[in-house]
Amino acid sequence: MNHPVHVGLIGSGFITAIHAEALKRCSDAEITAVASPTKGNAADFAKKHNIGHHFTDYRKLLEMDEIDLVVIGIPNDVHCQVVLDAAAAGKHIVLEKPMCLNLAEADRMLDACRKAEVKFMYAEELCFTPKYVRMKQLLDSGALGAPVLIKQSEKHDGPHAPHFWDVNRAGGGVTMDMGCHAVEFFRWMLGRPPLKSVYAQMGTHVHSAKTQGEDNAILILEFANGVTAVAEESWTKLGGMDDRAEVHGSKGVAYADLLHGNAIETYSAAGYDYAVEKAGSTVGWSFTIYEEIWNYGFVDEMAHFVDCVKHDKQPIVTGDDARVVMEALFAAYHSAGTGQKVMLPFNTTAAKPIDLWKKAQ
Amino acid sequence: MNHPVHVGLIGSGFITAIHAEALKRCSDAEITAVASPTKGNAADFAKKHNIGHHFTDYRKLLEMDEIDLVVIGIPNDVHCQVVLDAAAAGKHIVLEKPMCLNLAEADRMLDACRKAEVKFMYAEELCFTPKYVRMKQLLDSGALGAPVLIKQSEKHDGPHAPHFWDVNRAGGGVTMDMGCHAVEFFRWMLGRPPLKSVYAQMGTHVHSAKTQGEDNAILILEFANGVTAVAEESWTKLGGMDDRAEVHGSKGVAYADLLHGNAIETYSAAGYDYAVEKAGSTVGWSFTIYEEIWNYGFVDEMAHFVDCVKHDKQPIVTGDDARVVMEALFAAYHSAGTGQKVMLPFNTTAAKPIDLWKKAQ
Amino acid sequence: MNHPVHVGLIGSGFITAIHAEALKRCSDAEITAVASPTKGNAADFAKKHNIGHHFTDYRKLLEMDEIDLVVIGIPNDVHCQVVLDAAAAGKHIVLEKPMCLNLAEADRMLDACRKAEVKFMYAEELCFTPKYVRMKQLLDSGALGAPVLIKQSEKHDGPHAPHFWDVNRAGGGVTMDMGCHAVEFFRWMLGRPPLKSVYAQMGTHVHSAKTQGEDNAILILEFANGVTAVAEESWTKLGGMDDRAEVHGSKGVAYADLLHGNAIETYSAAGYDYAVEKAGSTVGWSFTIYEEIWNYGFVDEMAHFVDCVKHDKQPIVTGDDARVVMEALFAAYHSAGTGQKVMLPFNTTAAKPIDLWKKAQ
Amino acid sequence: MNHPVHVGLIGSGFITAIHAEALKRCSDAEITAVASPTKGNAADFAKKHNIGHHFTDYRKLLEMDEIDLVVIGIPNDVHCQVVLDAAAAGKHIVLEKPMCLNLAEADRMLDACRKAEVKFMYAEELCFTPKYVRMKQLLDSGALGAPVLIKQSEKHDGPHAPHFWDVNRAGGGVTMDMGCHAVEFFRWMLGRPPLKSVYAQMGTHVHSAKTQGEDNAILILEFANGVTAVAEESWTKLGGMDDRAEVHGSKGVAYADLLHGNAIETYSAAGYDYAVEKAGSTVGWSFTIYEEIWNYGFVDEMAHFVDCVKHDKQPIVTGDDARVVMEALFAAYHSAGTGQKVMLPFNTTAAKPIDLWKKAQ
Repeated sequence: MNHPVHVGLIGSGFITAIHAEALKRCSDAEITAVASPTKGNAADFAKKHNIGHHFTDYRKLLEMDEIDLVVIGIPNDVHCQVVLDAAAAGKHIVLEKPMCLNLAEADRMLDACRKAEVKFMYAEELCFTPKYVRMKQLLDSGALGAPVLIKQSEKHDGPHAPHFWDVNRAGGGVTMDMGCHAVEFFRWMLGRPPLKSVYAQMGTHVHSAKTQGEDNAILILEFANGVTAVAEESWTKLGGMDDRAEVHGSKGVAYADLLHGNAIETYSAAGYDYAVEKAGSTVGWSFTIYEEIWNYGFVDEMAHFVDCVKHDKQPIVTGDDARVVMEALFAAYHSAGTGQKVMLPFNTTAAKPIDLWKKAQ
Repeated sequence: MNHPVHVGLIGSGFITAIHAEALKRCSDAEITAVASPTKGNAADFAKKHNIGHHFTDYRKLLEMDEIDLVVIGIPNDVHCQVVLDAAAAGKHIVLEKPMCLNLAEADRMLDACRKAEVKFMYAEELCFTPKYVRMKQLLDSGALGAPVLIKQSEKHDGPHAPHFWDVNRAGGGVTMDMGCHAVEFFRWMLGRPPLKSVYAQMGTHVHSAKTQGEDNAILILEFANGVTAVAEESWTKLGGMDDRAEVHGSKGVAYADLLHGNAIETYSAAGYDYAVEKAGSTVGWSFTIYEEIWNYGFVDEMAHFVDCVKHDKQPIVTGDDARVVMEALFAAYHSAGTGQKVMLPFNTTAAKPIDLWKKAQ
Repeated sequence: MNHPVHVGLIGSGFITAIHAEALKRCSDAEITAVASPTKGNAADFAKKHNIGHHFTDYRKLLEMDEIDLVVIGIPNDVHCQVVLDAAAAGKHIVLEKPMCLNLAEADRMLDACRKAEVKFMYAEELCFTPKYVRMKQLLDSGALGAPVLIKQSEKHDGPHAPHFWDVNRAGGGVTMDMGCHAVEFFRWMLGRPPLKSVYAQMGTHVHSAKTQGEDNAILILEFANGVTAVAEESWTKLGGMDDRAEVHGSKGVAYADLLHGNAIETYSAAGYDYAVEKAGSTVGWSFTIYEEIWNYGFVDEMAHFVDCVKHDKQPIVTGDDARVVMEALFAAYHSAGTGQKVMLPFNTTAAKPIDLWKKAQ
Repeated sequence: MNHPVHVGLIGSGFITAIHAEALKRCSDAEITAVASPTKGNAADFAKKHNIGHHFTDYRKLLEMDEIDLVVIGIPNDVHCQVVLDAAAAGKHIVLEKPMCLNLAEADRMLDACRKAEVKFMYAEELCFTPKYVRMKQLLDSGALGAPVLIKQSEKHDGPHAPHFWDVNRAGGGVTMDMGCHAVEFFRWMLGRPPLKSVYAQMGTHVHSAKTQGEDNAILILEFANGVTAVAEESWTKLGGMDDRAEVHGSKGVAYADLLHGNAIETYSAAGYDYAVEKAGSTVGWSFTIYEEIWNYGFVDEMAHFVDCVKHDKQPIVTGDDARVVMEALFAAYHSAGTGQKVMLPFNTTAAKPIDLWKKAQ
């Protein structure tokens, strides 16, 4: 491909704004169009980000021949259809996490992309987070010996958009929303060994008036190579985003904290505009983050995906990985419902992950 | 009691040295005697700590009328008999953790102390750790709202004394040794609500040539008030002791780190004597701790127990608490063996906790 | 002395409350009386701290034969007379920092104590701060090689009591109040080599409506052994007390932070009683300190001074040290006024330190 | 300019390798040639970085018509001549810090660039360090109120290349090498108010066998707006690079630490390739940094300079700023020699900064 990769954005919410910012920093990418169903949203987004075309119907965007790649940032329940349509239109695909609502959808999506010979890239940004990339190099170099225990957690006080709180649209609560990060993080960090088992503890502790989904979850995973992994997720943690990881090995240990571990330590009697995602007040002590999009890995992520399209390379994280994550999430909800460790592979015809928790309770 | 409390130490190892140091700082205590079976140990200990009497047979110590209180720091498998004998001799008792090998022993010990009308005090120092005491005040004051999730972990690279590695003497691995801290910490911090369930993941990752006991464990507990608790224990973590806790509530969160969170950050090209328990080398960067015994809570712990004896007060942590911890540990090993969440109360006639894990595997 | 040391407290403000708390933890001390001129203060203090005698005239306290030791915590301008009177009454003396208003007073005080053969102990608690004591051991052990640079700073947003803001009573601003800590800290840490020179930069940046004293100061000191020392003091730093030190040597470096480096990291939407000295609001993020008096060194300090009196030992920090600090403070103010490094020894007949700054400007 | 900016690199050492890495990430830049006098160096560098042309004589590089911009990373004593030649050749110029050896050189360089109408850009990367950029936004937004005190320090255990240690080539020691960063950092952060005075304390504490230059320095600067600034520089600090800044204002305070404040906390019994610039051993605890060049600001710096050339914009840091820094450095060395605060403007015909220190001593 000897022109910049032409990108169509599907969605216009929080994550699509991040995708747009990240893509603007990719010299090989050009954002050609944006589509969003709510009247006015795409137009506003296009204006703000200086994008030439905007649509309320994403199928119009897919009809644009010049578009090479679509980047999809929409509610989970519409992932499947959009991916099927994008594949049918011959577009390469970047799909925001998590993959979809169930394994049948996952299989249809994978099948469609395979047949259409389009790249199906899975936007797990933790595989591109600069600090975590360095952590993986430490582990791969032998600095820590053989891995024994790996941890990752992500916590804030809950998402803004209503579809996250509606389990029919989201498929579950914080485990679907943020646990999916941890599962792929573990797989990537460890070199993608098979998953052996999943155990999960879930609860709706604070937001029960607002959602049927769990607002706190602890997952314990076992990998075939004997490594234990612990994921901790919360939608009830005040004081701003928290994102941390640890790798414990037979010869060492490494701790990485993306937020408090990188921030400017600030005290302001006056307050100021913004400290970090979901920080709440900035009066008093706060932990001011900088270049947030870069530090989370979104810039390197989009650069990688654009590079894969432009030079026909193999992405480091794909729809197949996304499918494994979905399987683990179903196992987690089943475990939370039954109080038992669930062995993998785990097959289920459940329509969405949370059904396995609720049904069993 | 209008004289100092006269204390007899039973044991002469690592923990008894700490008990002695802590007791020396109690103005109301006087160490009268020490007993230890290995020839020479008690004599050396008595000399080093300037103690008037020493015995190889602890029963001789129990025969000393002037002794009011015995502080027991010996291998787990001999806890029961010594407590029974001490109670029979009418001595008040401080017993180092964990309580004993099984629930039958626990019941015999509790029964004997009740009948003898001696105080049975359980040496869980985390209930006295100054930083954790402040954390409990934060929670109790409402600063954090209603508790949602509580965490505590303790990690180092393994104990020195051989009896810890022998499951017949210790009853298990790191869960028995350090998980017992976490369980009582959770109960104390939360005001001792009933335990509802325990799940555990255990593995022997690094020290399998040395022990049948687990060297890493993750425990998830549920309390009757809906709080989830996560304990993380390791005997394979290099670089010195790690002891941390977190309390997550509906209105806030608090993080306490006893070691890196208190240390002097030191770089030494020359190295030096000692940074912290189990630190290994002090060349290069290290985290130098100070007043370790005080910071862990041992000083305040012994002061409390001595005060209870002197003024006939009710201890804040007793043999009854120790028995609840034992029950939870049995549940944890059973869970690790079965892959299932174990509901409490949990009764078992197993001779020692680890049998439930090994048997089920 | 075969009875507890009987202590008389002179003063009833912030620091005397700390002295009382610290003394209560000394098994060898007993607080016998308190004196404070404002009607009702001594009575209230005595009631609160359960002290048998109280006076509005400290001379009545000095008349009590049973008092062995007076601990003086009063405004700087009345230090001299009270010390002279206490010496005349044959009492041992603990004097809170800084020593007095000028060198003539200092010499009279030293002379009086020498003649009366009473101990003149200088309450520089940084010489007893447990974390700094460990830091000194690191340096003394050779872990850091030969010292090159030493730093200490103390910052908050200004004192409460009005006499601190009145330069006629205090003698100066933040340099008198907190710079005196740094000077003696440097001397103690380095083994008390002679001071060679002092340079100071002072300014009244925020509180000029309230005081003629400087509210920020930077001091650079040179010692005869070639070590450079930097003191940083502020009365304008919001967000709670800050107290830190660094020792840089030819073979290493050590950093100690007493507050943020020890605190529980807390987020509270509700707020709570108290985080740390001068913290302001506790809503949002705060750094919760615990056992503050112990961590600053007041407990070990009072224990040492009581021990010196009881067992007739030589105190590790005396009136002679306090006099050297005064000389350095005069040099600092002179330097701030002249923009020149001031060489020591420095003699001056100035009535108070700040005169040398103001006169020269 | 409707082609990428064609860049010629002059130099092939440590800093030029960083410039090359940073320029590779600029989509608008293309490295056309490299020049370095030592036989083989430019050829090796060109091969490693895939650069089309290489020369031992930089004048050949300047003869290449297609080169738009030269980036100069060579010893201080040859800065002047190369800038004069580059200006004469009509090339835009990026010059690595510090500017040159003396004020006469500075004026010749500025004059030449002005006459040749080429951009003279000064490579002070701290003005582009992402964390410090965020800190400046905090200050500019009023979050901290009016600035009172500003601090910046940079410390490691000494440079590798021999010319840094030779004061005839470098013009001074650590103040020339790293103090220049602090001075421009202060000016930039504060909005470039005039400098009022400079005081400096310098010493050669550890490396006196190797250099006449100072290996430790403390600078106190006063700005016309009343702000005090403190710079701390060291060539003797072991354990890896240290780079920190603080801004204290009337309504708040902000602390930024680029290294320990961003690092992965790592313990490795095995050791590994690289933790951070000048880290020494990686066995034991280390602070692993990631994306070092980006975090220091080199990527954004080069992108800005390339953008200035491509779109004919005004650089945010220029040769005029570099000249102010030189003046402050001369004042600092003069102060270190005389023990006096030096008022600005400060004119001197000294051949190099260190002469003012040595002469006065």
